[in-house]
Amino acid sequence: MAEKNFTPAELYDVWPLLSPEERLEGFEFLQRDAADDFFLQLSARDRALLLLALPVGVRRLWLRQLAPDDAADVIQEAPAEERDNLLSLLDDSARREVKGLLDYAEDEAGGLMNTRYSRLRADMTVDEAISYLRRDARAREKTVYYVYVVDSEERLRGVASFRDLIVASGDKLVGDVMRTEVISAPDDLDQEALSRLFMRHHLLMMPIVDAEGRIKGVVNVDDIVDVVQEEATEDMQKLGGVATLDEPYLEVPLPRMIRKRAGWLAALFLGEMLTATAMGQFETEIARAVVLALFVPLIISSGGNSGSQATTLVIRAMALGEIRLRDWWRVIRRDVVTGLALGAILAAIGLTRILLWQVLFDAYGEHYFLIALTVALSLVGVVLWGSIVGSILPFILRGLGFDPASASAPFVATLVDVTGLVIYFTVAALVLSGTLL
Amino acid sequence: MAEKNFTPAELYDVWPLLSPEERLEGFEFLQRDAADDFFLQLSARDRALLLLALPVGVRRLWLRQLAPDDAADVIQEAPAEERDNLLSLLDDSARREVKGLLDYAEDEAGGLMNTRYSRLRADMTVDEAISYLRRDARAREKTVYYVYVVDSEERLRGVASFRDLIVASGDKLVGDVMRTEVISAPDDLDQEALSRLFMRHHLLMMPIVDAEGRIKGVVNVDDIVDVVQEEATEDMQKLGGVATLDEPYLEVPLPRMIRKRAGWLAALFLGEMLTATAMGQFETEIARAVVLALFVPLIISSGGNSGSQATTLVIRAMALGEIRLRDWWRVIRRDVVTGLALGAILAAIGLTRILLWQVLFDAYGEHYFLIALTVALSLVGVVLWGSIVGSILPFILRGLGFDPASASAPFVATLVDVTGLVIYFTVAALVLSGTLL
Repeated sequence: MAEKNFTPAELYDVWPLLSPEERLEGFEFLQRDAADDFFLQLSARDRALLLLALPVGVRRLWLRQLAPDDAADVIQEAPAEERDNLLSLLDDSARREVKGLLDYAEDEAGGLMNTRYSRLRADMTVDEAISYLRRDARAREKTVYYVYVVDSEERLRGVASFRDLIVASGDKLVGDVMRTEVISAPDDLDQEALSRLFMRHHLLMMPIVDAEGRIKGVVNVDDIVDVVQEEATEDMQKLGGVATLDEPYLEVPLPRMIRKRAGWLAALFLGEMLTATAMGQFETEIARAVVLALFVPLIISSGGNSGSQATTLVIRAMALGEIRLRDWWRVIRRDVVTGLALGAILAAIGLTRILLWQVLFDAYGEHYFLIALTVALSLVGVVLWGSIVGSILPFILRGLGFDPASASAPFVATLVDVTGLVIYFTVAALVLSGTLL
Repeated sequence: MAEKNFTPAELYDVWPLLSPEERLEGFEFLQRDAADDFFLQLSARDRALLLLALPVGVRRLWLRQLAPDDAADVIQEAPAEERDNLLSLLDDSARREVKGLLDYAEDEAGGLMNTRYSRLRADMTVDEAISYLRRDARAREKTVYYVYVVDSEERLRGVASFRDLIVASGDKLVGDVMRTEVISAPDDLDQEALSRLFMRHHLLMMPIVDAEGRIKGVVNVDDIVDVVQEEATEDMQKLGGVATLDEPYLEVPLPRMIRKRAGWLAALFLGEMLTATAMGQFETEIARAVVLALFVPLIISSGGNSGSQATTLVIRAMALGEIRLRDWWRVIRRDVVTGLALGAILAAIGLTRILLWQVLFDAYGEHYFLIALTVALSLVGVVLWGSIVGSILPFILRGLGFDPASASAPFVATLVDVTGLVIYFTVAALVLSGTLL
């Protein structure tokens, strides 16, 4: 690399574009304290990659810099065969803690928690508490804002902020200063539910407790910001019909990118093949009235678009906790009305278009009105159907225990394409039999 | 309402389902301090609705409870004709502050900031600073974790945490205890960029400065969590082809919901009408070889699905700051390779399917191989084209100053549908001329 002398900010900006060797060179060129800051800004994934590129001696140094939960994240991001190796670089107590954290699933509260928090007893005086906190290294971490009060069984009894302690007179008991209404979360709570709890109570830190109410660690809001972004990315990618990437877009190697997209694309293709079968059933009708074929893309795509809108809205509202499983009936009723209204609007536009073309270009022959009627009625049916399928599918998936976001827009569109064709040709048979058909 | 005695948590859960009158009744039934907590949990929108339902005297009481930035949010959510009214309920100094905040756009740093922070001078001793902070009401707010050190022109000079002050000896100067590298943001920074800055530096609070480096207020991380959710929701809804809702799903009145969906749906429908025109150009070909029509939905939807994948991935990566405008060429190169590979995969499946049906059912007559070839070649072209359009469109929109998320999946699909038909029938003309055509 010709120009090595990046500032830390410049290095951070070009980081995604650099090869592993260039990253190593750039990082080693940084001053020690700039390197420190830089290392802490990297994502767990980039940290793992950098660590594995470093010589073993230096690797230990940097890994030990990390708090247990960050070390656990890094180890989780490393390839499976490197994990034991990395674990062995930690000292005994850190290793035990990291192993404990690795036992939790990545997407539950326990997997996000860390042990950088301080505990007090309710029967200490405020002065005793402050002098204890001054000696407690964990209280110095910059992410510690509250102190948790526990009983002799480690059960959570109350919470006090540093400020609560400063403004109280020194001879008061911690038990009299603390607030006893503490919002806590069980260690197996899903991270999406946890983030909703944080948002609802505007918290910066939340204690995580086990089934017996014993405090196991805390989760900080900055990890929650990451969770919210990550969950939104996952949902969006699923909604777009792609398997979740897990890596920044430009860093996904092409073969993996192709695999992530090919799965859904091939599945949708197989489903969409049914359209050829469905249309095959109506081959004689099409041969007799080729004009019917012209409107096929228009009609089925309208159903697909309406379905894609409905599924997007429902999936996002579910993720935000705005609708729950038991709301399914209200949602469907709404989508029936919406679907009918939208279908009527498109039908009116479609009708106008066909009549206009007929007047201007005599495009559709003597039966133009029946053709226009067929298209209009089919549009109402298909758009309504798309809306219903798009809104109900996430409920069905969730009810069956799947992720509702798997009801991706392309999936709904494919489903609606096949049924849309049947609707269209059935309407055509009813309206046009005896004339065109 | 028969059963009035909701606990605050129960009331919060059923809130979205209640009518304005029921909300008022439920709220008035709460104990005073439960009502306090409850009020602070509500979203700005629900708070505004509740306030407007309260009698004027009580309304003033609750509005004055809010910090200036929260009051500004509530006023922003109220109907335009109520805003002056609400402003007049505030005392003079709060009103000035709220008006100042209302001048900022809702989605820039200034619009998110609040004035709950404390200022110190560098030449105070730590003891002086602590006794000053004990008297400063703003330092008692539970969201205050850092104290900012400013010079006589209000320019930001440093930052200290409460803990920094406690652990330092009392006769030291604040200037010696503070950290001088403060990460701050300009007041006109877009909220999406601001949230990336928070995430990168794992901050809980960030000072917002004007062009002269004077501190204007602070933004807290809990507001950033809201921003991240809100931006993700907006992007997802746009991606699904719906105008942004701004309200929880179930609370959007049906007529508004229909409007929000009808706009895009009608626009897409008008675009999709070009498919009828495009197919009209090939009417003679279709009449001669009806079999061609059978594969139309299959082929164009494959292009649409591939385009919807590409646009979803690129839009999300842009929102996360993973790719920037100048990366367009890298992205296209990647999508050409990906598109070709995916097209080849689908072509292979399509080819197999047609050959299989031919062997099993003699479905396509003597020219079955040429038909299979037409479908396979078209698939490669259409899937490649979908991938390119889907990935380039967000760049074009951003380059023109529009929101890249407007390149919604249905929009890309519509664009690809029309061009996909042209690709398909052109390939068909080339391959089949002299035989079927």
